[in-house]
Amino acid sequence: MSNKQKRYFLTEEEIPTQWYNIQADMVNKPLPPINPATKQPLKAEDLYPVFAEELCRQELNQTDAWIDIPQEVRDMYKYYRSTPLVRAYGLEQALGTPAHIYFKNESVSPVGSHKLNSALAQAYYCKKQGITNVTTETGAGQWGAALAYAAKAFGLEAAVYQVKISYNQKPYRRSIMQTYGAQVTPSPSMSTRAGKDILTVDPNNQGSLGTAISEAIELALNTPNCRYTLGSVLSHVTLHQTVIGLEAEKQMQKAGEYPDIVIGCFGGGSNFGGISFPFMRHNILDGKTTRFVAAEPASCPKLTRGVFQYDFGDVAGYTPLLPMYTLGHNFMPANIHAGGLRYHGAGVIVSQLLKDKMMEAVDIKQSESFQAGLLFSQAEGIIPAPESCHAIAATIREAKKCAETGEEKVILFNLSGHGLIDMAAYDQYLSGSLLDYEVTDEDVQRNIAQLEKVL
Amino acid sequence: MSNKQKRYFLTEEEIPTQWYNIQADMVNKPLPPINPATKQPLKAEDLYPVFAEELCRQELNQTDAWIDIPQEVRDMYKYYRSTPLVRAYGLEQALGTPAHIYFKNESVSPVGSHKLNSALAQAYYCKKQGITNVTTETGAGQWGAALAYAAKAFGLEAAVYQVKISYNQKPYRRSIMQTYGAQVTPSPSMSTRAGKDILTVDPNNQGSLGTAISEAIELALNTPNCRYTLGSVLSHVTLHQTVIGLEAEKQMQKAGEYPDIVIGCFGGGSNFGGISFPFMRHNILDGKTTRFVAAEPASCPKLTRGVFQYDFGDVAGYTPLLPMYTLGHNFMPANIHAGGLRYHGAGVIVSQLLKDKMMEAVDIKQSESFQAGLLFSQAEGIIPAPESCHAIAATIREAKKCAETGEEKVILFNLSGHGLIDMAAYDQYLSGSLLDYEVTDEDVQRNIAQLEKVL
Repeated sequence: MSNKQKRYFLTEEEIPTQWYNIQADMVNKPLPPINPATKQPLKAEDLYPVFAEELCRQELNQTDAWIDIPQEVRDMYKYYRSTPLVRAYGLEQALGTPAHIYFKNESVSPVGSHKLNSALAQAYYCKKQGITNVTTETGAGQWGAALAYAAKAFGLEAAVYQVKISYNQKPYRRSIMQTYGAQVTPSPSMSTRAGKDILTVDPNNQGSLGTAISEAIELALNTPNCRYTLGSVLSHVTLHQTVIGLEAEKQMQKAGEYPDIVIGCFGGGSNFGGISFPFMRHNILDGKTTRFVAAEPASCPKLTRGVFQYDFGDVAGYTPLLPMYTLGHNFMPANIHAGGLRYHGAGVIVSQLLKDKMMEAVDIKQSESFQAGLLFSQAEGIIPAPESCHAIAATIREAKKCAETGEEKVILFNLSGHGLIDMAAYDQYLSGSLLDYEVTDEDVQRNIAQLEKVL
Repeated sequence: MSNKQKRYFLTEEEIPTQWYNIQADMVNKPLPPINPATKQPLKAEDLYPVFAEELCRQELNQTDAWIDIPQEVRDMYKYYRSTPLVRAYGLEQALGTPAHIYFKNESVSPVGSHKLNSALAQAYYCKKQGITNVTTETGAGQWGAALAYAAKAFGLEAAVYQVKISYNQKPYRRSIMQTYGAQVTPSPSMSTRAGKDILTVDPNNQGSLGTAISEAIELALNTPNCRYTLGSVLSHVTLHQTVIGLEAEKQMQKAGEYPDIVIGCFGGGSNFGGISFPFMRHNILDGKTTRFVAAEPASCPKLTRGVFQYDFGDVAGYTPLLPMYTLGHNFMPANIHAGGLRYHGAGVIVSQLLKDKMMEAVDIKQSESFQAGLLFSQAEGIIPAPESCHAIAATIREAKKCAETGEEKVILFNLSGHGLIDMAAYDQYLSGSLLDYEVTDEDVQRNIAQLEKVL
């Protein structure tokens, strides 16, 4: 490649000073979250006992398109941002495609994923409000690691409930959280009523994200000066993640390109929204026609096979009712390695955008995702997280179409994290023992039929 | 910090176009390697059957101070270089030191360490010579992973012999090598005579680097179009690593500073030499008085307690005799987590420089290294490799002296790699079960006494 530039950075002065709130520009705003007891739309104040107040206001803000990034958060962003925008020459060559493939490399964050972008913001707003302790839940541990480090950076104590089976089976991310100084408790635990209730009935319960959320919220509510934090799904989390797309927009300008297609993997929607919304803004306001493709696992297909419906965000039904594409909050996703994509619903903003055909969704089988991840590893050197492999697989599909048609489309995807803590998954793929999981229509319909009809 | 810059990069055009060969500028050149059979100085041609020819010439080159980096290697360097030069504000604050601490972050390489800088060069020279297959040995796997990816990048087949105990106990780096497409064999194996001889006598032998080196060399010698590669110790490896210090020099200029002290951890010497030699050049030629500090483990103290003597580079005695600081090639280092520092000797260039008092060495106990690594993780977010923790510990010692004296010294250290595959070691430290290892003078003297006196 010699004279061709491989990576694009921003100077520290060029790092965005504001996050982008797409809610302000949406033609059809998301429907309001609803208090399940009163069936009335939720107010920001209703959430104050759980989240830092500024985050509650951001959650429901449908008027301000731009939200200032506090200087203290920008100072911490400088530790790893801008992340590189990379031209994937190696992947293009391996595919023999005329497409120009770019990826935003969020895996270079010290915690290994994009999660830190919101963790730092949430920890900062808690600190600013005088909060001293934060709680959260985590499965495989990407979000827990991000919160653990963010809490340390802002001088907060962090308590993380980790799903017990992950705590025991994937000890490395637990160790990472502990290295950052967080207290990590396997969930269910005896430290909360929710945990005790489960363990009394089932002492060997291996935990779930739903249970861990309940424990983390309960601890936050019962601890002075403590708040709960969440790593995806909610609108304020996606807001913070727009720093990804805002940087990418400036970096693409430096490369002299603009994306025809933007792709992200999809769990709750925050990394997808983070890379997409700053570009989607130009579809809404400036007549651009970029396509936005969410890549979800075939085993948890809420966008491609779910319904748009009010549903709870958690299994236990403690959260407000949210207007979302969902498989039903009782849907139990298969145990794929992309733990961050094992979620029954989608955030309210992306759900409205999908309903309005502002974006698309594709489903990717586990085997296709790892096939894509292996090709990417060998072509670009970076071993991607199992979640990110879904975005790569969707990218490869589009790039292969370009190889057939000869079109030089510009494709941008988000490499949300690295897979260095997930090598056991690659081992399974390489040894031929990786499983694919199918979801039957019956499964989908049974869960959806249980939903209370609020709409 | 707000207006203060945190990280410094180079543009792709600013990435060095030449490596720096300090041998050309040394007042006292290293003594020649000696053929153990003839007792005559080694010629480059003697090494041709084992290494690519250009590497053999680089190994013995004492006249050219600058060696061009081939364009093909520079193109691959662009995948991750320049690596960031980072001002460690977080660490400075945690230590309350007036020192200005900088680190060069080689952990951002796709394989997680500086090893790729030489692996790409070695793979390229093999490819250029028409070689199709490369072999090497690896312990924990940092070097093996780097060579596996470099081989894939240049279209070579790679066979890696991994010490059996690491192959079984640390499967993640094996998986990384396999993901890059390398064939990984636990050593000792039945694929070589050296391996068979050991397994016949001791079927449960768990392997050693010495044995793995023997197997890799034997495979290279017995396979058409195949050469062996090595990850440290040799002068050509250190030459390639000078890209670290050359970049750092330009980046320090951008920061408006010049180091008073340069620090690197020390195994065979390639990452230490890589960051040090470009600055040491100005001590030799321009009257600068920078101090250079090699941080070695207290359990493998060849620089601080070894002798300067001709010795073999490997346990079995297959290599040429090298003039080095050594604990004797039969010295068996304790099983510390910093596997990359468990080597009985030092490269010939650093050995001569230490003899000539151009550099210093300190020894660091394992517990002090992890204490430093934990502090660094919490202050800067990056979890360092156990090897790199030694450099951090030495840096902290110097920074604390500055806190006492009030001196604003500029300290630069090399963060050679991240510790994400080494979290079990942090677990041990956090749980209080990490061991320190002492080396008795008797141990040192017994091994040294066995050395044949060639000098």
